[in-house]
Amino acid sequence: LRTGFPEVIWGADKTPEQITKIINLMRQDDGVVMATRIEAEVYQQLKQTIPDLMYYPTARICALSAPKTPSQIGKISILTAGTADIPVAEEAAVTGELCGFAVTRLWDVGVAGIHRLLSNRDVVYNADVLIVVAGMEGALPSVVAGMADCPVIAVPTSVGYGASFSGVAPLLTMLNSCAAGIGVVNIDNGFGAAILAGQILRTAKKISR
Amino acid sequence: LRTGFPEVIWGADKTPEQITKIINLMRQDDGVVMATRIEAEVYQQLKQTIPDLMYYPTARICALSAPKTPSQIGKISILTAGTADIPVAEEAAVTGELCGFAVTRLWDVGVAGIHRLLSNRDVVYNADVLIVVAGMEGALPSVVAGMADCPVIAVPTSVGYGASFSGVAPLLTMLNSCAAGIGVVNIDNGFGAAILAGQILRTAKKISR
Amino acid sequence: LRTGFPEVIWGADKTPEQITKIINLMRQDDGVVMATRIEAEVYQQLKQTIPDLMYYPTARICALSAPKTPSQIGKISILTAGTADIPVAEEAAVTGELCGFAVTRLWDVGVAGIHRLLSNRDVVYNADVLIVVAGMEGALPSVVAGMADCPVIAVPTSVGYGASFSGVAPLLTMLNSCAAGIGVVNIDNGFGAAILAGQILRTAKKISR
Amino acid sequence: LRTGFPEVIWGADKTPEQITKIINLMRQDDGVVMATRIEAEVYQQLKQTIPDLMYYPTARICALSAPKTPSQIGKISILTAGTADIPVAEEAAVTGELCGFAVTRLWDVGVAGIHRLLSNRDVVYNADVLIVVAGMEGALPSVVAGMADCPVIAVPTSVGYGASFSGVAPLLTMLNSCAAGIGVVNIDNGFGAAILAGQILRTAKKISR
Amino acid sequence: LRTGFPEVIWGADKTPEQITKIINLMRQDDGVVMATRIEAEVYQQLKQTIPDLMYYPTARICALSAPKTPSQIGKISILTAGTADIPVAEEAAVTGELCGFAVTRLWDVGVAGIHRLLSNRDVVYNADVLIVVAGMEGALPSVVAGMADCPVIAVPTSVGYGASFSGVAPLLTMLNSCAAGIGVVNIDNGFGAAILAGQILRTAKKISR
Amino acid sequence: LRTGFPEVIWGADKTPEQITKIINLMRQDDGVVMATRIEAEVYQQLKQTIPDLMYYPTARICALSAPKTPSQIGKISILTAGTADIPVAEEAAVTGELCGFAVTRLWDVGVAGIHRLLSNRDVVYNADVLIVVAGMEGALPSVVAGMADCPVIAVPTSVGYGASFSGVAPLLTMLNSCAAGIGVVNIDNGFGAAILAGQILRTAKKISR
Amino acid sequence: LRTGFPEVIWGADKTPEQITKIINLMRQDDGVVMATRIEAEVYQQLKQTIPDLMYYPTARICALSAPKTPSQIGKISILTAGTADIPVAEEAAVTGELCGFAVTRLWDVGVAGIHRLLSNRDVVYNADVLIVVAGMEGALPSVVAGMADCPVIAVPTSVGYGASFSGVAPLLTMLNSCAAGIGVVNIDNGFGAAILAGQILRTAKKISR
Amino acid sequence: LRTGFPEVIWGADKTPEQITKIINLMRQDDGVVMATRIEAEVYQQLKQTIPDLMYYPTARICALSAPKTPSQIGKISILTAGTADIPVAEEAAVTGELCGFAVTRLWDVGVAGIHRLLSNRDVVYNADVLIVVAGMEGALPSVVAGMADCPVIAVPTSVGYGASFSGVAPLLTMLNSCAAGIGVVNIDNGFGAAILAGQILRTAKKISR
Ligand SMILES: Nc1ncnc2c1ncn2[C@@H]1O[C@H](COP(=O)(O)O)[C@@H](O)[C@H]1O
Ligand SMILES: Nc1ncnc2c1ncn2[C@@H]1O[C@H](COP(=O)(O)O)[C@@H](O)[C@H]1O
Ligand SMILES: Nc1ncnc2c1ncn2[C@@H]1O[C@H](COP(=O)(O)O)[C@@H](O)[C@H]1O
Ligand SMILES: Nc1ncnc2c1ncn2[C@@H]1O[C@H](COP(=O)(O)O)[C@@H](O)[C@H]1O
Ligand SMILES: [Mg+2]
Ligand SMILES: [Mg+2]
Ligand SMILES: [Mg+2]
Ligand SMILES: [Mg+2]
Ligand SMILES: [Mg+2]
Ligand SMILES: [Mg+2]
Ligand SMILES: [Mg+2]
Ligand SMILES: [Mg+2]
Repeated sequence: LRTGFPEVIWGADKTPEQITKIINLMRQDDGVVMATRIEAEVYQQLKQTIPDLMYYPTARICALSAPKTPSQIGKISILTAGTADIPVAEEAAVTGELCGFAVTRLWDVGVAGIHRLLSNRDVVYNADVLIVVAGMEGALPSVVAGMADCPVIAVPTSVGYGASFSGVAPLLTMLNSCAAGIGVVNIDNGFGAAILAGQILRTAKKISR
Repeated sequence: LRTGFPEVIWGADKTPEQITKIINLMRQDDGVVMATRIEAEVYQQLKQTIPDLMYYPTARICALSAPKTPSQIGKISILTAGTADIPVAEEAAVTGELCGFAVTRLWDVGVAGIHRLLSNRDVVYNADVLIVVAGMEGALPSVVAGMADCPVIAVPTSVGYGASFSGVAPLLTMLNSCAAGIGVVNIDNGFGAAILAGQILRTAKKISR
Repeated sequence: LRTGFPEVIWGADKTPEQITKIINLMRQDDGVVMATRIEAEVYQQLKQTIPDLMYYPTARICALSAPKTPSQIGKISILTAGTADIPVAEEAAVTGELCGFAVTRLWDVGVAGIHRLLSNRDVVYNADVLIVVAGMEGALPSVVAGMADCPVIAVPTSVGYGASFSGVAPLLTMLNSCAAGIGVVNIDNGFGAAILAGQILRTAKKISR
Repeated sequence: LRTGFPEVIWGADKTPEQITKIINLMRQDDGVVMATRIEAEVYQQLKQTIPDLMYYPTARICALSAPKTPSQIGKISILTAGTADIPVAEEAAVTGELCGFAVTRLWDVGVAGIHRLLSNRDVVYNADVLIVVAGMEGALPSVVAGMADCPVIAVPTSVGYGASFSGVAPLLTMLNSCAAGIGVVNIDNGFGAAILAGQILRTAKKISR
Repeated sequence: LRTGFPEVIWGADKTPEQITKIINLMRQDDGVVMATRIEAEVYQQLKQTIPDLMYYPTARICALSAPKTPSQIGKISILTAGTADIPVAEEAAVTGELCGFAVTRLWDVGVAGIHRLLSNRDVVYNADVLIVVAGMEGALPSVVAGMADCPVIAVPTSVGYGASFSGVAPLLTMLNSCAAGIGVVNIDNGFGAAILAGQILRTAKKISR
Repeated sequence: LRTGFPEVIWGADKTPEQITKIINLMRQDDGVVMATRIEAEVYQQLKQTIPDLMYYPTARICALSAPKTPSQIGKISILTAGTADIPVAEEAAVTGELCGFAVTRLWDVGVAGIHRLLSNRDVVYNADVLIVVAGMEGALPSVVAGMADCPVIAVPTSVGYGASFSGVAPLLTMLNSCAAGIGVVNIDNGFGAAILAGQILRTAKKISR
Repeated sequence: LRTGFPEVIWGADKTPEQITKIINLMRQDDGVVMATRIEAEVYQQLKQTIPDLMYYPTARICALSAPKTPSQIGKISILTAGTADIPVAEEAAVTGELCGFAVTRLWDVGVAGIHRLLSNRDVVYNADVLIVVAGMEGALPSVVAGMADCPVIAVPTSVGYGASFSGVAPLLTMLNSCAAGIGVVNIDNGFGAAILAGQILRTAKKISR
Repeated sequence: LRTGFPEVIWGADKTPEQITKIINLMRQDDGVVMATRIEAEVYQQLKQTIPDLMYYPTARICALSAPKTPSQIGKISILTAGTADIPVAEEAAVTGELCGFAVTRLWDVGVAGIHRLLSNRDVVYNADVLIVVAGMEGALPSVVAGMADCPVIAVPTSVGYGASFSGVAPLLTMLNSCAAGIGVVNIDNGFGAAILAGQILRTAKKISR
């Protein structure tokens, strides 16, 4: 995508053959190659011709040559409201790590049990960028942005039923947040949230020059 | 409406003449008579022929013979997320008081500044029924219902702009709340929330017999 | 959830292994443990490692140590408009019983055959709280709330086709009801309706002392 | 429009000059000429050049040479759920009368007070065609169609606020009615309902010969 | 349903066992018994215990003791815009015939080839009631109602893709028709259209007395 | 906009001062200058400083130096369903004429009176491009495209009420047309339709050389 | 469809038997016969009784006797924003070729990498008609129409997730384009786009006579 | 709001008296005080009691003691697609300047004339954060994010008509952007975009130390 970031393949609408071909093409390049929205069975097929391909099952991401330790400046903290939001959050987390950033995970701190969030407030305070993932009513980003003093990226998820309308309800909640300083991405778009977080942190390097 | 509750007129689609006529008709009855959605100018007209008519300007309610002190058992606490939600909350509060209940008001405790809610948590704990009024992202009822141990009535308001879609955003937020024990009413329906609260508290009396 | 109420697991997005683990974890606690949205096949798997787990097939709920007789004060009556609404109504009924309340069921009394409702009006009059479940046009709660003198919880269901839009039509009907004293929950949310009913009855007990 | 029915002008998007011109053009024809959606001020202007023009203020209809007594076979009964629905119902009633039919009016028999409808059930039973007008939750046509043994024409109105979405809520309610034998027209379309009723009664006459 | 009309079962949400039970229960009654939304496989199961059950595969209706010849007064003509609309039209046609009416079918006369409709105009002129079934843009009822001098029942279908939104597009088209005298039913509701047609025709009998 | 076409100003969101300034700026250029969405009062103001500015009141367009006779090859025919659609159609017609094309107008040939269209079919057959403007149910383009053998540009209008949703209903109708060969533009976008027609005719000239 | 264009069958809602029958019926006619929305397995079945039937797998089109070389005047260029849009674009491309036109393909030139489009601008400049296919944000037609001097047909696709709402997002983008001269077709309607392009080019021939 | 940022008042739902009172209350505090959504007439009233209050008419912002020169590290570039988007962009620009940042403005570089953007590409390359404001089709952020190597904040505006649905169309476009690294805010929310930009730049400073 951008200098210093991984090459990325959107795996959802492609056959294993197409993905394999693109990965091998990109491998020439120096650096990380990754594909998102890869189901376990697809990974099994890809692995047969690309034996060094790694897989992150919850995030549904596969990758070549991931960085061992954070190589970039800046800390991303990722929070979820519920446990069903974790796959989207992991898509963000693994993408962030493959970009070279340190990632802290905090799952299941939704607003219906506000004490769990409050007793983990250091995760909020220590972050340089926050990614907050929530489905159903999607209220968590508002509360977090009210506590934090750094940019908040809000990710609505399609978790829920009935009047959640596959993520429309949390999407609207996040766009209407009373707390300023929130940028919203598409429903279930953990990947996009991580790239935006990465862009924010790289701006720091640029500015400090 | 119901035994022991005020007679109520929905003022929005009626002329001053029609309202006057209905009030006088209902006056025969013993007890409180009230009308909602009455603008100040309409009240001025009504007052000329019904001199003992009272007016609650923020609530846009007018009434005959309101109870001086709470005459019914049970305490209603009413919260708003913002100051712009106050008219809807006052519609609920005045209706509740005209029904004979004790009402506690707590304005402007929205989730983007969670500390204000937390430092007023006794208002939440002391209530027998909670009415929570919020526009924009409408997240307050979820947080409150997670803290409270009594029924929560959630009232979405049309306060907001853009993707709040005149109250659709907070309505969806409230319907999708992860916190169980929440009943939702129509957008801006402060009156309906108070009547539901009244029904809940009157059930207590019935049960205790 | 709340003191004296069952521990609850949302079963829909979890594997049998995850559910088993959480049930066993919660079993330590004194009291009822229940899980909602459990399909029959999932229950068969759960039962192999948790032999004392009970199953309510229509409600799609499984539970440990259900109360034999109502242990709490207050009567919940549950009505449905059609027969296809029964699974949602049973989710409410079984939850209510697992919370310790007496539950009366009245199925198939939709407004298109108003005589059936009218000839069962004692079920409406004897309730302390009413849960009214309806899909398609969702008109039943309005009629019931006009007859009843206790709180009404309205549950829209996704039963219907075409312009019912998976429950949006009855949801809107219920939110717009001319009869005050109705609280609405999410589409198909029988569980949430029962918890709200339980909160109402517990509050009643509290204040009636 | 059709042989034996009035000539009709849709007044909403026309200037008084245009309407005057069309009325005079149609006057040549034998029979009734009518215009809908005519505000009182517009009528005042029209009257100056067409002195024999009559006006029905609630219906917002003006007409030339209305029939004195019903000249056609068949009785139309028109019901409204609330008083705010009366203007739409009057548009239907006056149109029906101008077409030559006998019209019975029954206002304010909404489902939230079902007894009022039940104590007027002869109006339902005596009709050859029923037009049922309702806003807000729009549940009345379902109940009426369940009681009646003749065709029911359902007219949703834009009466309501919040989640009634200017008539969408009652429109969906009516389309989803569990009671078969209901035909729905556009929101606030009292005129169209009356013409459909007229067509039904004329067809009846035709085949009953 | 109504005196002289068949007993009807909505087959969509019922098991073969439930349907069998209801059919046998209703058989006691004198007259036709029918069930809609019955897939071929379900019929095969039903037939094993109810050998005299008939099946109309395109209409997806099964029935006991259908009338051999029309026993009621009045002719229903049913039109479709395309061939994919035929199953919905057949649901209407078979229901109409089971109610005892004469039914004329005219398929595939959509407005994009207006000549086909025009060269079959006698089907339109000879009808006492018209049922017009159309998906995609749903324009056929407008054209037909402009030509016909009898009531038109419009049935939108879920046939189409993309911006037809499963029948919303033709539903809106039909509700907004410039041609007065059209009553609209729910998307794909052929059954309801036929019952409304039957009610219209039975009114004739009543009037002529 | 494009070589040989007028310079165009979107007048809707601009003050008279801004429009005057832009017109004078563009006047330098050789050729026609035009502004759309200009209300009569705004034109009166513009005229005071630009005395040679012409005004087309129904189209709400003003222009400098319009072509006297068609200067371009190709005939555009423009049809409307109703009279209320004429302003949008005139926006298209005047734009087309200012671009130099011959324009034929045919108003009020909506599908509810199909004979009027059929008795004017030469207007359809003689066109090189058709622009069809319709509100309410918006069915006219489908019928026309089925008759024509040239490209059809469909323009939905916001004419209508209730379920026309300010033009959404005819927009969907046009997008779902069974007749292929139709291109749709935005609601009320007469201008855009004319520019597309102009592009089509200019392309024709280009390739016919 | 139209003189000189192929006979077309909409394959989506038909059985292989029905399609076979229609193809054989149309074969009598002189010229190309084609069917759209044909899955590979369906083609395998069709081929057994129609051995000379050709198949275009990506376009999901099968055809009898396709033209070897372009037989018609005019060049169609087809662009896609992404690779997932190719099937819809191929439906357009193959249809265009079966109609006898020369088609140039340019895939994967979406606006997020504007350089790729800019370095292929000759494809835009050389076209007589442009078909631009895009899902997700659907922005490509705007940019292309700003560069091109010929008609642009915009095809939204259902490619995307979350807030793309199965093609609604790109549909709205295209209808709202600031660039005039764009005609929009239904979501995924590659076929319709090609027929419109064909109509545009055939008009040229007509005009040039 | 946050340490070092101005105190902010949302002026839209407040009377001049309320705003005056809050400004005077906040003046005690050290630093900038600002109010958004202030119409010119309201400012005239405020100024009478707060003579040192400044006004930015296009941005509709008033402020006390604005910084003379940028006091914070980091450059914000703000782009608009059209001229009608400028008020929203100015709300962002003035807020950014009142926060102490250097702001570069680039108006009217929408995608329908891509050359204007390309010939100003240094504005894109020189920014540390980009705010991109667009109505109608809202495509500009996608193109800009594809060119830029810094975070992009996308602001949809309510500019447009018809199918732009008061900003819904550009909102969806921005959420679906193929270009990663974009955070979206509410429709017309220039203020929120500037605060998010400010948070990003302050975080950058923090971590670059
Ligand atoms: N059927 C249901 N509908 C709505 N909410 C439910 C349902 N079942 C469980 N819940 C809620 O889900 C929570 C448990 O979610 P989890 O921790 O994901 O198992 C409980 O505290 C309940 O509030
Ligand atoms: N209130 C109304 N609602 C719906 N349609 C109407 C109404 N009044 C008149 N119309 C229709 O509008 C047609 C006349 O339209 P116009 O030629 O524009 O005056 C009549 O033939 C009626 O079908
Ligand atoms: N295809 C159908 N579409 C709409 N309503 C139907 C249909 N078939 C049956 N019904 C209605 O469903 C009722 C029977 O429902 P049930 O008691 O659930 O079998 C009948 O009285 C009919 O009014
Ligand atoms: N892929 C397609 N998308 C839209 N319309 C199509 C498509 N393929 C065929 N059609 C239309 O469908 C008609 C044939 O429909 P049918 O008679 O049902 O086979 C043709 O005349 C075309 O106008
Ligand atoms: Mg949440
Ligand atoms: Mg809130
Ligand atoms: Mg019901
Ligand atoms: Mg009603
Ligand atoms: Mg059609
Ligand atoms: Mg039309
Ligand atoms: Mg694109
Ligand atoms: Mg743009």
